[in-house]
Amino acid sequence: MLLNCDLGESFGAWQMSADAQVMPHIDMANIACGFHAGDFSVMVKTVALAKQHQVKIGAHPSYPDLQGFGRRSIPMSAEEIEAMLLYQLGALSGICHSQNVALSYVKPHGALYNDMMKDDALLQSIFTAINKFNADCPLVIMATANNAHYQKMADAAGISILFEAFADRAYDDQGFLVPRSQKNAVLHSCEHILSQAKQIKDTATVTSIHGNIVSLAAQTLCIHGDNADAVAMIVQLKNLFEK
Amino acid sequence: MLLNCDLGESFGAWQMSADAQVMPHIDMANIACGFHAGDFSVMVKTVALAKQHQVKIGAHPSYPDLQGFGRRSIPMSAEEIEAMLLYQLGALSGICHSQNVALSYVKPHGALYNDMMKDDALLQSIFTAINKFNADCPLVIMATANNAHYQKMADAAGISILFEAFADRAYDDQGFLVPRSQKNAVLHSCEHILSQAKQIKDTATVTSIHGNIVSLAAQTLCIHGDNADAVAMIVQLKNLFEK
Amino acid sequence: MLLNCDLGESFGAWQMSADAQVMPHIDMANIACGFHAGDFSVMVKTVALAKQHQVKIGAHPSYPDLQGFGRRSIPMSAEEIEAMLLYQLGALSGICHSQNVALSYVKPHGALYNDMMKDDALLQSIFTAINKFNADCPLVIMATANNAHYQKMADAAGISILFEAFADRAYDDQGFLVPRSQKNAVLHSCEHILSQAKQIKDTATVTSIHGNIVSLAAQTLCIHGDNADAVAMIVQLKNLFEK
Amino acid sequence: MLLNCDLGESFGAWQMSADAQVMPHIDMANIACGFHAGDFSVMVKTVALAKQHQVKIGAHPSYPDLQGFGRRSIPMSAEEIEAMLLYQLGALSGICHSQNVALSYVKPHGALYNDMMKDDALLQSIFTAINKFNADCPLVIMATANNAHYQKMADAAGISILFEAFADRAYDDQGFLVPRSQKNAVLHSCEHILSQAKQIKDTATVTSIHGNIVSLAAQTLCIHGDNADAVAMIVQLKNLFEK
Repeated sequence: MLLNCDLGESFGAWQMSADAQVMPHIDMANIACGFHAGDFSVMVKTVALAKQHQVKIGAHPSYPDLQGFGRRSIPMSAEEIEAMLLYQLGALSGICHSQNVALSYVKPHGALYNDMMKDDALLQSIFTAINKFNADCPLVIMATANNAHYQKMADAAGISILFEAFADRAYDDQGFLVPRSQKNAVLHSCEHILSQAKQIKDTATVTSIHGNIVSLAAQTLCIHGDNADAVAMIVQLKNLFEK
Repeated sequence: MLLNCDLGESFGAWQMSADAQVMPHIDMANIACGFHAGDFSVMVKTVALAKQHQVKIGAHPSYPDLQGFGRRSIPMSAEEIEAMLLYQLGALSGICHSQNVALSYVKPHGALYNDMMKDDALLQSIFTAINKFNADCPLVIMATANNAHYQKMADAAGISILFEAFADRAYDDQGFLVPRSQKNAVLHSCEHILSQAKQIKDTATVTSIHGNIVSLAAQTLCIHGDNADAVAMIVQLKNLFEK
Repeated sequence: MLLNCDLGESFGAWQMSADAQVMPHIDMANIACGFHAGDFSVMVKTVALAKQHQVKIGAHPSYPDLQGFGRRSIPMSAEEIEAMLLYQLGALSGICHSQNVALSYVKPHGALYNDMMKDDALLQSIFTAINKFNADCPLVIMATANNAHYQKMADAAGISILFEAFADRAYDDQGFLVPRSQKNAVLHSCEHILSQAKQIKDTATVTSIHGNIVSLAAQTLCIHGDNADAVAMIVQLKNLFEK
Repeated sequence: MLLNCDLGESFGAWQMSADAQVMPHIDMANIACGFHAGDFSVMVKTVALAKQHQVKIGAHPSYPDLQGFGRRSIPMSAEEIEAMLLYQLGALSGICHSQNVALSYVKPHGALYNDMMKDDALLQSIFTAINKFNADCPLVIMATANNAHYQKMADAAGISILFEAFADRAYDDQGFLVPRSQKNAVLHSCEHILSQAKQIKDTATVTSIHGNIVSLAAQTLCIHGDNADAVAMIVQLKNLFEK
């Protein structure tokens, strides 16, 4: 079970997340590509930091929306989605290449990630873009109780999938995240988070907010690196998985 | 003598230049990378058009300045210049790769181009970026009476140079362009333009605005593709060079 | 029946529309405020041109989306919509004030305009913004067969409404525009356009694409100023209305 | 002696400065206008916060440069400078007007501020913009040993000036700030800062880095609100000035 984290989300004079504190403890760094965060200078520094700690580098592309931090859906044609992804994957890839490290996977950000889970045509556009860029580059998508649907689409497109789960978010009976607008959507107890992580890792299931055991097979766990508490939790998760 | 032209300079709903009319007649397309012009969708279409006409594709990176069309100098550190170039070269390269065509050269745009000719430290940053990206990728710079200076710097950096001349601009005695703010800076007579192009090609010299013969060795000629008249001139230059 | 036209939609080096040719013939200029088009320099020039021809100046605010020309819906809260409008109305107002001309009305652009017609909560946010800015400033909205609904909302909010119709677009039986994606959505025959304009003006009705007479009361007609043909049509409409 | 502070410099998801902690203790809030920081939502919130604490609101306009936080000089014509300022002053003014508070002064930000002190033509463009916007709106500029030069220009332009000094920066013998690139440019000792503030207030002089007493008449002191330490210092300065 690999730990992945969104990093490189500073922009210009604005800082975000504790990149330097988080990087030593994770396996996969999802690096912003300039569209929701992460200007070119931030990207160069974040790639260097990932390289230093031998962390796999993933592209974290977004809709073009700095002000909205990529959290707003922007309607686009399939051709625009492809072009937008190729641009961002290429930009990060150019920076990786300059430092002799590989771009290892793709994980869409924010609204683009959410939209991809709800809209098969959009997911197909993302497959097409990755296929044109580098078919060996896996796509990170959300693990749900219905992984088979996504796996089938990915197989047909010739794309590898990495399913990711969340240790600190409540799940519903279909294995989808309980929306943040609802009560108890986010787990705050350290014990609860570790227990959910352990259950996902050991049994490929999660206990839903309604108390049901739901299938949830995942290869990676998405964690947050916003502050010192978050970093402490990452270290505990890392210890849990290395046992 | 190869013809190069700035293309792909539309943005969103705004059109610029007669790309489709120009592309069949040129050898090298300098394609905007999204910083002064050319959004990702425009880039995909322009690369496809260049591929269709077997035109060499060059990156045309710029300072980040859509409103100023990259014509304004923006002060940046050497590290920022490198990061900015790697981002743009990578983005265009990703799009080229998706269409199985090569990114063949780099020609900085606007103020970045002018600054590079005046500031050896900036030129060195551009060499460094290209070296990290792909040392086989030549850099297009302006031919002057002092090519030796630039060639020496490029040799030391391990970078290839392509010198470019202008058929429709007046030169001074050092082989620099007469600034547009001065009278007679731009040649308008078709005959004069063709004659200057022929002189550059056949003798590697130009006649300066003061009537002196100035050394001006160039491998490529920069032409403009703004309108129907410009396209007609390109066709005449093409015919001249193919004789 | 007043003629209104979207103007000031150039940006930086990119030109759009024949502003100088259109301005002498219209009554109301909808001026872009920098979010979908129209940088601050373009705004200053367009306000000066409107002043010269004694054309009423309206704000043409948009979602923040240069690349999409404001044609894409961007999800925002009511507070964000209000803030976004106050910013744009204020910016244009500052420029108007500097030239001693008034900002006389507001007409949302593109996706914001379409969304306002479909979403009463959004329309209410627009009313609130105008109320906070200048309650005497009327809002231009689309005339339909159901003007009463919008008039009632506007009255409750204390906002004046100007209903606008389109001479060159086909209408359905509810008085809504036939979407451009459908056949015959746009009228191309000069005769047909003039006849529809005359019918709207004289009878406050339009003949729908299905041949039915539909109620359509409007105080202003939206026209386009893209090219020489469009300008010629504007002149004919102007003559028609001045009879 | 009034305390002024740069506030409203968050943008989208990125936070900057302790606005809520600083506002109760200052007299003048320099509010970013969206060009270097401060999107429209941030502006609405910052104006409301200033209103709540009865703090005077000033426009803090900048070159258009989010990535560079307005710290980079961007070459512009006099007409562009004027248009750029009118746009930003108008935008903030619209938001102020919606909350029934006044826009009381103008203080250029970052590179625009520095350039204004070095380039009389640029300063003249700023005067012209303010004159066209609201001639009663004073301009904040840096106090130096040569206030008379700036006062004379302002008088000729019909503009009021507020001179500002810095408590935590070292001065040279001309009353200019020692550049941050030099050693000892920034005062870190709390005692030293308070003593410099007291000297400026009581004697209209400052002791230069070379030990000389330099004339420095100022009506306002610029302070920083970045963190808890800065807030504590503001409280001490406030107490000093209220004695």
